[in-house]
Order: sequence, then C-alpha cells, then structure tokens
Amino acid sequence: MTRINFTPGPSQLYFTVEDHVRQAFKDGIPSLSHRSKEFEKISKEATDGLRELLNIPSGYHLYFTGSANEIWERIIQNLVEDQSFHFVNGSFSKRFYEIAGLLNKHPQKLEVEMGKGFDANVNIPASAELIAVTHNETSSGVSLPLDTIYAYKQKNPNALLAVDAVSSLPFPDFDYSKLDTVFFSVQKGFGLPAGLGVWIVNEKCIAKAEQLLAKGISIGSYHNIPALHSHALKNQTPETPNVLGIYLLGKVVGDFLRRGIKTIRQETEYKSALLYQTLQSHGLIKPFVTDATYQSKTVIVANTGEHTEKVTKLLLEKGMQPGDGYGPAKKTQLRFANFPTHSKEQYELLVDTLKLI
Amino acid sequence: MTRINFTPGPSQLYFTVEDHVRQAFKDGIPSLSHRSKEFEKISKEATDGLRELLNIPSGYHLYFTGSANEIWERIIQNLVEDQSFHFVNGSFSKRFYEIAGLLNKHPQKLEVEMGKGFDANVNIPASAELIAVTHNETSSGVSLPLDTIYAYKQKNPNALLAVDAVSSLPFPDFDYSKLDTVFFSVQKGFGLPAGLGVWIVNEKCIAKAEQLLAKGISIGSYHNIPALHSHALKNQTPETPNVLGIYLLGKVVGDFLRRGIKTIRQETEYKSALLYQTLQSHGLIKPFVTDATYQSKTVIVANTGEHTEKVTKLLLEKGMQPGDGYGPAKKTQLRFANFPTHSKEQYELLVDTLKLI
Repeated sequence: MTRINFTPGPSQLYFTVEDHVRQAFKDGIPSLSHRSKEFEKISKEATDGLRELLNIPSGYHLYFTGSANEIWERIIQNLVEDQSFHFVNGSFSKRFYEIAGLLNKHPQKLEVEMGKGFDANVNIPASAELIAVTHNETSSGVSLPLDTIYAYKQKNPNALLAVDAVSSLPFPDFDYSKLDTVFFSVQKGFGLPAGLGVWIVNEKCIAKAEQLLAKGISIGSYHNIPALHSHALKNQTPETPNVLGIYLLGKVVGDFLRRGIKTIRQETEYKSALLYQTLQSHGLIKPFVTDATYQSKTVIVANTGEHTEKVTKLLLEKGMQPGDGYGPAKKTQLRFANFPTHSKEQYELLVDTLKLI
Repeated sequence: MTRINFTPGPSQLYFTVEDHVRQAFKDGIPSLSHRSKEFEKISKEATDGLRELLNIPSGYHLYFTGSANEIWERIIQNLVEDQSFHFVNGSFSKRFYEIAGLLNKHPQKLEVEMGKGFDANVNIPASAELIAVTHNETSSGVSLPLDTIYAYKQKNPNALLAVDAVSSLPFPDFDYSKLDTVFFSVQKGFGLPAGLGVWIVNEKCIAKAEQLLAKGISIGSYHNIPALHSHALKNQTPETPNVLGIYLLGKVVGDFLRRGIKTIRQETEYKSALLYQTLQSHGLIKPFVTDATYQSKTVIVANTGEHTEKVTKLLLEKGMQPGDGYGPAKKTQLRFANFPTHSKEQYELLVDTLKLI
C-alpha cells in the first residue's frame, strides 16, 4: 500500500509530480544541455513562477544550489567576514551556527531549549554582520512570527538578515523588503524529489560578497554570489545543475499558482488548526510547542511519550506515515508535515485516527 | 521526433532510465527519508555496484556531491594547503586550476593549447601537494594515456594525484592503487539525469583533510571529507541528497554489470575506431586531435570548419543531435559523445550520414 507521507522532508510528493516527470521524459528534458535555449526557458519558468507565487520584489535574485545545507555554507562564505549571529532553538538552527565555525568565522548565538522561540526584544551585538534566523525549526516545530523577524532587522539595519525557510515556504507571506536573503529546499513544502536548493538574495548581499572578494577573502568558487549571479542573469547556472529538478519546480509552482497561494495558505491554516485542536484536547498526546505564538503551521510536533509506538502503528495501519521525533526525541515525539500536498481530507483522516488512541 | 543525443553531457539517457524512474515512483523513492534504512540500502547498492563495476579496491571510499564542479572545490579545500599543480589543456582543466585560485591557494600549471596532450616526462615542483590531471578534456576531446597519468604519481609520490574522469568513466580501466582521488558526474558516461557527482578518495586523502583541519585550516563544512566520510560509513550523506539520482545510479550500474564492463569497453573502442576512421578518410571534416595517442575514445571532436552548419542540419534531419564545439570552436567543430548508451547501430548510422557530406 502506498502511504501518505507526513514526514517533514523529504515529504509526500505533490500529486502532480509523477505526471510532470512523464512529460519531462517525453520532451527529452533529462538529457537537455544546460547551455541550451530550452534550458534557459525552463530555468526562467521556475524563477518567474517563484517570483509571482512568493511575491518576491525586483532587486531580489534567485539562485539554484544542490541543497539548503549548501546555502548555509554559501551564506557564511559570501556574507560574513568575521561574525554572524544565530538564533538557535533546535538542530537545524544550531547546524547553521556550527557551519559558520567550520568556515573559520566567529559566530555568536542566542540559544534556547528545543520547543522554545524568541521574542523581538533581543540585543544583537553591533559587530554581527549577519543575523541568521530559522523561520521554522524542522526539528522542534517552532516557528517565529514574521514581525519578530522583521524587528531584528529594524533594530540592526547594518546587519544582513538571513532567513531559513526550508520547511515553511510557500506558506509564509514574507515581506521580502524587510529581509536580505531567504532560502529553502524543494523536498518539503514544494513536494518535489530532493536535490535542489533555492537561494533568494538582494542587492546588499551581492555588494557584500563583492566587498569580501575585493578584500582578498575567498567567497568560494563556482557557487560564489558573483558566479551564481552572472549566470542567473542568463537563466543559467555555473555548473551542470539538477535540470530535471528545476523543470519540476517550475511545473509545480505553476500548479500552485493555478490553485492560488491564498487558498494554499488558508488550507494550511485550517489543517494546522485541526491538528493542534485535536492534540490540545487529547488525553494522551499533546502538542510539544505549548505557546501558540510559536506553534509552526507547517511542521507540527506531538509529544507522544510512551504511546509513540502505538500511535505510529495505528497510523501506518491506516496508510499514514508520521515523521519520527528528531534526534533524542525519536522515541517520544512524532512530527507531522502540513504542506500544500497534504489535503484537508488527509488531515481529517489523520485527526480522526489520532482520536482513536 | 526524439533525437539520439550525441552531446557530451548532459547526454543521451541510458535506455533503461525511464523504466527505473517509473519503478522509483511506484516504490515511493522520491519521497523517501534520507535517514531511513531504505535509503541506506539504495545508497549501498549504488556504492557497491560502482565498486564492482570500476574495480575500486578497499581503502577507497565513495561520496556523493551535487556536481563535479563541487568536487573540484572540495578537492582543493580538503587536499591542498597552499599549492596544487594542474595540467591544463582545455576549458575544464583550466577551470579546475582557476578554482584553486578562487579558494586562495597558489596553484601552478603546465598549459598547452587545446587539442594537445602531455607526455609522462614533466617536472612537477616538489612543493605541489596535489597533481590535478584531466583524464578526458570534454572541451577538446583529448585523453591522456593511463601510463602517463601513473608516471606523474610515481615520480612525485608525496603529492596526491587527482583525476577528473567526468567524461570518460566507466570506460577507463584505472588502476586505482596508482591514483589518490578520482571523480565523475552521472550525466555523461552513466547516461543519467544531471545533478549528482561521485567522488572517490583513498585513505591518504582522508589523512590530508584531517591534517589541514588540525592546523586550523577550513576544509569546508557539511561536505568536508570527515563529514562525508562519517556519513558514507553508514551509507548516508550529511545533507538531504538527490535521493532519486542515487537510486537511478545504482540501477544503471546494475544494468552495466549485467551487460559486462568488458563488453562496454570493447564496444566503446569499436565505435570510436569507426568514427575516427571515417573522419580520417573524410574529404571535408577531420579529427581535431591528430595524435592518436591523445584521441579520446569517449568524446570525439571533429573539425567541421565552414561545413559545421551543413553537417549539423543533415544529422538533425536523420534524428541525431551532435554536440557543438566548445567555446570559441562553437561554429567550427562538432563533438560526439561515445558513451555506453550510444549503440553500435547508432554509431554506424552516424558515420554513414557523415560520409554523405
């Protein structure tokens, strides 16, 4: 039996992907030269589609990478000479911080325990060149309110603000003019096969990378911002990219546009409300994140404690694959992705099943 | 009409790929967690298969990256403190050299013009920590004899020897014990969709990376050798990788094993002999590489001069897509990939068509 995959990533494919793959093979996309006009069209379709879907203003540019992990590295290499400041509240935000250290920068952090968020009132050292915020911590299901994120930039206008939106986009309606760089990978909210990251940067990021380069600091090679940028202007990439991945992204973004981003966002709200309500009123399992301000709409984490195995077994029997808790919480929590591919009906089946416990 | 794609990469897909993709979707591979046992099996299948196909000895390890461009960068980061030495005879070997400079190392080079090779008798400075050789220059169709490559290592045993085999594997029967690191990407000889690089390293490479790290030199982050290695030991990757790409690689390698590497190599020899003979005896078009010692068996470049457009048109009419000449040779040369996916019959049709000119 094919199961509905609620793991937070790779997650359930968007339901149109298989058809798009079939068409791609018919049209010879997987063996297309990445220096052809046809590829440029494919790349432009994905980029223009994302720009429309996410309402990305002009002056913001989109680059393709191999993964979001790669973007963590590229952000530090290209945008930080010495010091970045990281909000750490889980495994992924912590990893971003660690990567800065591995690249011989001197990152600072404000760390809180898993399941907690941050408020707007934080003193960030003036020496921080970059503020790294994880909009949605995939490990713990904590999401930061957009106004909180914008406040960090307002109070620290000289620092660049980087937002990891790996497991939240396309849900959040960001005001990009208040952010400098945002990134995600396609195997989560976009319901695509893994192997592609999307990096959005503004002109200030480009200027910073050029500044570091002019100082003789290495900002990487084939995927530094100047190389990515000069190729992106031609709808190309420096290397032979995941052509099929970029094609599929363009197609699924087209599907999202036809469905309407407003509908997608409303349905995400509805489904998350359904699950949180069920967990809140449940006798045995509870939401891990208790402060509603920080409850993620796209990755919902349940404290399942000693019932984890039983809940998992029941869900599997009903054709649903929950995500394990992350790291040390593997045996005591379950995570549920709430992405555009997960239908209202699937969420209704999920909560009805949880109520049986 | 679907054309046979002779471009050197991305090239014609291996003829089994589409069926493998269909099976992958049936089995839920594109939404599989990269931390699952199923993924570990997929990763092991690709790695074990490559080990058998290419006869890679124990003590050599295989890592997955986003592209071969990435491997150029990772080799320089992980294996060079200050100085690498590059054999440059075309656009790709030159790019490898340039990448070392972009990473603030001090690369040296021996450069010859496009279409030329190198002999075994080269003085490499003792200060070179790494010798970078491009086994097969995709831009010019020059391939170096294996004994020539081995000689560089024999005369410079303290340097690591890195071999770019992007557009030659699985054809060359390397004696890996005479090389330290080898790499390729899957969209060429393996006939797969682009978006995956394979990096083979030995224990000396691992030791060198650890040495640099111990000295406080940054060797990258999520894709440095220690991170790749500790994950590879578990058949995992540090990041969410191109899961579908790794699955397809394992499947196509399985197909190659059933067909037999000896057969694949013999057929490659036969097809290349056919094309070189046709070009040599042709009145209007000639092989670009005139010294038989250096004529690539896997990327064959023809000087088509003023006839380029006419030849291209005729081939397209007959359902064959030649590769353009690289860079400045775009209008005066054509390149023909000779990969396992290109059948003898297709090569016979190709030469019969060229004879009509």
